[in-house]
Amino acid sequence: MNYKVRISDDFWNRYRNLVKQEMIPYQWAVLNDAISINIEKERDDASIPNEKSHAIENFKIAAGITKGKHYGWVFQDSDVYKWLEAAAYTLSYAWDDKLKKTADEVIDLIASAQEEDGYLNTYFSIMEPDRKYKRLGESHELYCSGHFIEAAVAYHEITGSEKALSTARKLADHICKTFGKNAGQIRGVDGHEEIETGLMRLYHLTGEKTYLNTAGFFLRERGKDPHFFEKQTADDQGKPVIDGIHKFPMKYYQMHLPVELQDSAEGHAVRLVYMCTALADLAKTTHDAKLAETCRKIWKNITEKRMYITGGIGSTVIGEAFTLDYDLPNDTMYCETCASIGLIFFARQMLSLESKAEYADVMERALYNTVLSGMALDGKHFFYVNPLEVVPKKSELDPGKSHVKPVRPQWLGCACCPPNLARLLASLDRYIYTVKEDEILINLFIRSTMECTYRGHTIQITQSCDYPKDGEIMFTVDHTGTDELPLKIRIPSWADGYKCSVDGRQTSADIINGYLEIRISIGEHRVNLHLDLEVKRWYANPNVSEDVGKVAIARGPFVYCAESVDNGENLHGLILPEEAKADYEWRADLLEGVGVISMQGFRIMAYDDDGPLYESAKRFTKKAQHIKMIPYYAWANRGENEMRVWLHESMGEVKL
Amino acid sequence: MNYKVRISDDFWNRYRNLVKQEMIPYQWAVLNDAISINIEKERDDASIPNEKSHAIENFKIAAGITKGKHYGWVFQDSDVYKWLEAAAYTLSYAWDDKLKKTADEVIDLIASAQEEDGYLNTYFSIMEPDRKYKRLGESHELYCSGHFIEAAVAYHEITGSEKALSTARKLADHICKTFGKNAGQIRGVDGHEEIETGLMRLYHLTGEKTYLNTAGFFLRERGKDPHFFEKQTADDQGKPVIDGIHKFPMKYYQMHLPVELQDSAEGHAVRLVYMCTALADLAKTTHDAKLAETCRKIWKNITEKRMYITGGIGSTVIGEAFTLDYDLPNDTMYCETCASIGLIFFARQMLSLESKAEYADVMERALYNTVLSGMALDGKHFFYVNPLEVVPKKSELDPGKSHVKPVRPQWLGCACCPPNLARLLASLDRYIYTVKEDEILINLFIRSTMECTYRGHTIQITQSCDYPKDGEIMFTVDHTGTDELPLKIRIPSWADGYKCSVDGRQTSADIINGYLEIRISIGEHRVNLHLDLEVKRWYANPNVSEDVGKVAIARGPFVYCAESVDNGENLHGLILPEEAKADYEWRADLLEGVGVISMQGFRIMAYDDDGPLYESAKRFTKKAQHIKMIPYYAWANRGENEMRVWLHESMGEVKL
Repeated sequence: MNYKVRISDDFWNRYRNLVKQEMIPYQWAVLNDAISINIEKERDDASIPNEKSHAIENFKIAAGITKGKHYGWVFQDSDVYKWLEAAAYTLSYAWDDKLKKTADEVIDLIASAQEEDGYLNTYFSIMEPDRKYKRLGESHELYCSGHFIEAAVAYHEITGSEKALSTARKLADHICKTFGKNAGQIRGVDGHEEIETGLMRLYHLTGEKTYLNTAGFFLRERGKDPHFFEKQTADDQGKPVIDGIHKFPMKYYQMHLPVELQDSAEGHAVRLVYMCTALADLAKTTHDAKLAETCRKIWKNITEKRMYITGGIGSTVIGEAFTLDYDLPNDTMYCETCASIGLIFFARQMLSLESKAEYADVMERALYNTVLSGMALDGKHFFYVNPLEVVPKKSELDPGKSHVKPVRPQWLGCACCPPNLARLLASLDRYIYTVKEDEILINLFIRSTMECTYRGHTIQITQSCDYPKDGEIMFTVDHTGTDELPLKIRIPSWADGYKCSVDGRQTSADIINGYLEIRISIGEHRVNLHLDLEVKRWYANPNVSEDVGKVAIARGPFVYCAESVDNGENLHGLILPEEAKADYEWRADLLEGVGVISMQGFRIMAYDDDGPLYESAKRFTKKAQHIKMIPYYAWANRGENEMRVWLHESMGEVKL
Repeated sequence: MNYKVRISDDFWNRYRNLVKQEMIPYQWAVLNDAISINIEKERDDASIPNEKSHAIENFKIAAGITKGKHYGWVFQDSDVYKWLEAAAYTLSYAWDDKLKKTADEVIDLIASAQEEDGYLNTYFSIMEPDRKYKRLGESHELYCSGHFIEAAVAYHEITGSEKALSTARKLADHICKTFGKNAGQIRGVDGHEEIETGLMRLYHLTGEKTYLNTAGFFLRERGKDPHFFEKQTADDQGKPVIDGIHKFPMKYYQMHLPVELQDSAEGHAVRLVYMCTALADLAKTTHDAKLAETCRKIWKNITEKRMYITGGIGSTVIGEAFTLDYDLPNDTMYCETCASIGLIFFARQMLSLESKAEYADVMERALYNTVLSGMALDGKHFFYVNPLEVVPKKSELDPGKSHVKPVRPQWLGCACCPPNLARLLASLDRYIYTVKEDEILINLFIRSTMECTYRGHTIQITQSCDYPKDGEIMFTVDHTGTDELPLKIRIPSWADGYKCSVDGRQTSADIINGYLEIRISIGEHRVNLHLDLEVKRWYANPNVSEDVGKVAIARGPFVYCAESVDNGENLHGLILPEEAKADYEWRADLLEGVGVISMQGFRIMAYDDDGPLYESAKRFTKKAQHIKMIPYYAWANRGENEMRVWLHESMGEVKL
């Protein structure tokens, strides 16, 4: 990183302390099977392993320290890697000798489990050494490798650990030797993208071109031979490594078309955004205009046609996948936590590629809504699926909704989300600003101090705010150079109005691509930004059939929801009149501090409990009801209850 | 049957001629693999056999006439039995020597495939003779047997065939010997109810108590040992007969509770209504008040909490099953054709048990909507799933909707529905009237003549009508006896108004349990009934979350729907104002004759094609639109297009 950020924000430091003090120790205990918890399946599927994590034990067995069999998913190793990466980031803002020692030991353990030639994967090392790289569609070997490389790069950057770096390079060198277009190399890719990001990061750290080239090979090779996995499976003949995956179409893996011809978001949502994260980085790094255009097209398709208002993506549980434009069911969707995390990764790379605030808008939307919804306020319970509508008894009794959990489990059979949340929150300092050679972008409003150099001179930006509780943001910019610094401050697309002054004088700067562009000269300057933060109604594009006649309420970046604990059951009966005014109240005592929105609405309900199923007159009872809403991210923190984001809106006058 | 009915109705005779002239020959060709057609899977599932039917060939192989392997579902035999039963019924209204000969030959073939001891199932005889009755949860052996017995009883009743009866008795005797509570007998039931109905019918025909007792054993044993299937599977150890079924909960088979304790509709919808059909017959036949009460409770739960307005049942594709009260999604449901056919069977038995018109109301609803929707107007294309909302591209691209087909296939991998439709339509004469010892019920308004004896005297009722096109119905009752005949004419629950006169004089008779009770004395009398048949709006109970703010349009028994061929795409954007008037026009030239309903509504649509996904203002275009609707049963007869039953209704005044 060519800049340094210290976060001092109340809202986010609560989360970052949670990562440090609760999530890292808790997840470490889980990975070591040292804590008695209830591991739930993320959906009703007999093949999901949910007895224990066993992730550290798998490494011990692979390293020859203990004896036994591998347990868990074939990608169980990645839980350890993501934990390690998260631990590394916490050391950057909360040094801890004990944690450093544990992390060093984990790296030693991983290095011991690594094979002589650099190969690293406990499942295949322990269980099926003869099937390495023979089922790349399912095996996740390169996916896991990518996660280790990412973790090692982060750990090296923050602690200087040479062991982490050398282990990662040994693995990367092995992969670069094994995969490629030359004779004797495997010309193929992993079913789940991630190695590409790992290699790109290792390239940025080391400058070693081989890593860039192999990352480029994996990305540009994708979809060139859509039958690669089938051929591998036919050659291998063994039993599936993950049962059922072979049923999915090639879109599932983004293998249906050569990557540069892809122009829509298809298949498994996490895979797609992981692919795009690396693709945007590659496009920028290699100045590949064609790949940059591919990234733009896929981005546009996601955010203008296939994204929930909460920043969730993935409309179906089957394949955890995208479906088609404007297909956004609110109660059967997937909206995996990891997918929105990946969308933020993708956005960050796009910001680096081009200074357009739309990327930061979506980053903020995903971060403040679906990502935070992925964990409980206690940091020890996690959602895999983040619905926009839940009725607990439907989750229990309608098998098409069995994946939609009304309460966050302590852990999941496939535990990709919890450590992914930890690594994103612990590295949040990397998302607030984008520092480019010729300009600085301010993407997120988070109280912090950023230091970087601009044309050889030090620049310090101090951001003071209590956002999104409050819309007043002050930037103190200390510029020691002589060249004017172009400072681009994002004006969120949700804001109807804003005011900005520089050193007390109202600015007439233009908004270009969503950024207010200010030029800062030498010395200390004060920029005051005011964003209108009123409660607003949002409507979906009429092409979204599920949201016709419905309204969502938001204030700033927070999308709101109604829970039955506040509003009684049968939330689908709540109706917000078009003209109802919103009251906003800050409640420090509630849910670690939330702004509560109340609106005078009504509720329709059955005339009597055992009334007929169909009637030719509207024999409904209408009852006035104060509708109370909380920010979406804070839902399901008060026990099992109904939740709903999109509420019915009545047109015209309603007589009660 | 203690009465005889001749149907002379235009609407229904078109269908009955279709059964005779198209469906029976077409299905016979399919069962013999003598026609080249596209057999579709009813849902996206690799295990569904869809290369051919092979059903007749299976019998030839089992009989030793040809050599080969069994192909198709383990219950493939039942397709032949249901075809045979349908063929039998057609002979009752359209005698055909050639068909009689073919049917006789089929019975000879079946008898040749029957084993010495009476056992009959081509899959087990050919493929796994050692596993007979060892996997009753999946094997469908008794299910198939029940269907053969039903067919044989019908064929014997209509043609007098002794071979049919003796073959059925041999099979029934074998089953009664094999199953029961005595030592050496199997104390268990079939996973799919049907043998119970077969045995009840054979008992009613022959008076042989053993059949009644064994039917009672199967019904009363159900759910007593919920682990019976698991124990069988553990003992058997072989591979599943149908893969995946073992994952379903015991509710799937109605095995979760002893049958007399069941009070809600659970599990696989077809199984549940088949069970209830036999249960209601048993309750009446054995005067079992407790079982009658169970039937009433399940009926009430289905029709007041778990049934679509079209008479469809089964809210989820997973297990083709019921889910929970008021859970009625319109686009992911199952609503299998066979389930609504089974609901009609159940209703018929309930009418026999007690004279309540609610049974006939539901019978009519299911018959005129979901059942007829199950087949194309040409009689050669069939739906398995009957949705209330279809968008073809969602069926194609959203895997959660892959079972919802927008166009009827020529045949289905699991072909239960096509011959089931044939046997129901061909035996429709059995549903119009219920003749009891002390009264006659008129359930359906279908032009016909019925003859029966009442206290030793002949009664003839001639029904003249052009229903449901027209609401004027005339009954001519010729009563030769001296005792007054209580004639109960159903006043449909959907009718707001009616008028009835006997011999020209307005009657003051009471409506009791939905039936207008008239007493007919000796001689010929004319009863004139007028039913108000205006177009009406229907609303779902507000507990149905999917239908809040929506309206369904119906006229008489026909529920209406909008198709995009008439209204353009994106039907979800259509909005019916509360005050819009309906125009009704009979169109003899359209869809074999339908009444078309038009209403002045409007449509909301996106302001521009590439507009934003979420907006804080309603930048929708509102456009006036004449909304045109056709009866639901006739949908999907004009190519692939969108369809929707529940339309949005606007409250208050709408400015365009």
